[in-house]
Amino acid sequence: MPTPAYDDQNVFAKILRGELPCHKVHEDDMTLVIMDIMPRGEGHILVVPKAPSRNILDIATDDLNAVMATVQKMARTLIEAFDADGTTIQQFSEPAGGQVVFHTHVHVIPRFDGVPLKPHTGEMADNDLLATQAEKIRAALG
Amino acid sequence: MPTPAYDDQNVFAKILRGELPCHKVHEDDMTLVIMDIMPRGEGHILVVPKAPSRNILDIATDDLNAVMATVQKMARTLIEAFDADGTTIQQFSEPAGGQVVFHTHVHVIPRFDGVPLKPHTGEMADNDLLATQAEKIRAALG
Repeated sequence: MPTPAYDDQNVFAKILRGELPCHKVHEDDMTLVIMDIMPRGEGHILVVPKAPSRNILDIATDDLNAVMATVQKMARTLIEAFDADGTTIQQFSEPAGGQVVFHTHVHVIPRFDGVPLKPHTGEMADNDLLATQAEKIRAALG
Repeated sequence: MPTPAYDDQNVFAKILRGELPCHKVHEDDMTLVIMDIMPRGEGHILVVPKAPSRNILDIATDDLNAVMATVQKMARTLIEAFDADGTTIQQFSEPAGGQVVFHTHVHVIPRFDGVPLKPHTGEMADNDLLATQAEKIRAALG
């Protein structure tokens, strides 16, 4: 299966260009961190590289390394911000792999003892709740 | 939550020291790739850094980058080896996050249109089947 070409009309490309809003948590030269608007748990965030790539199959090494540095930073921060007991990290490539938006992104989800992941229902979370969680994470980032 | 210390009696540490067998798929200076013996799908492999670390919370940057380079290489290889339609990548940290073996590892699972992930039942896969799949992946690696 050849990887399809990158399409810059995807939702994350639009967010990166400022054409769509997001709950921004963190940003550096190479990555953006936003709240997942269909979260599978409290504090579920996405790490998005700024450079275009579709998924793990075509992302450049420097972008992947930058994404993973931010993933690690965010995993530690989420545990502090939500007093979480662990984290689950997921990356989906292509529709069969679970990918819905075709710009590389990594899910980082704080986890709590005894609390299963919510199913991916496609239901949007409450906007104010996401804003509160984003603020909590930004505060933990210092 | 402080990350607990690394315990070198975990199963992957024993595999790395040659004290336990594994279905080895690939190896380089910094990483080992083995079949998951409780696979959630055909061709489910694990990328394991050779250096000790517990999970995403304590792994060193160089080790994380080496792991992800191998993850990317394996994602591409799995798609070729199994004619897969995508991949799902997962990394679990601490029991609440889904971690069972406390040496960092990343799951790379080939995915096929219309085939859901099997639940994690804790059931061991057939040894010959895993050997056949490992051989298929090694052949695709060239």
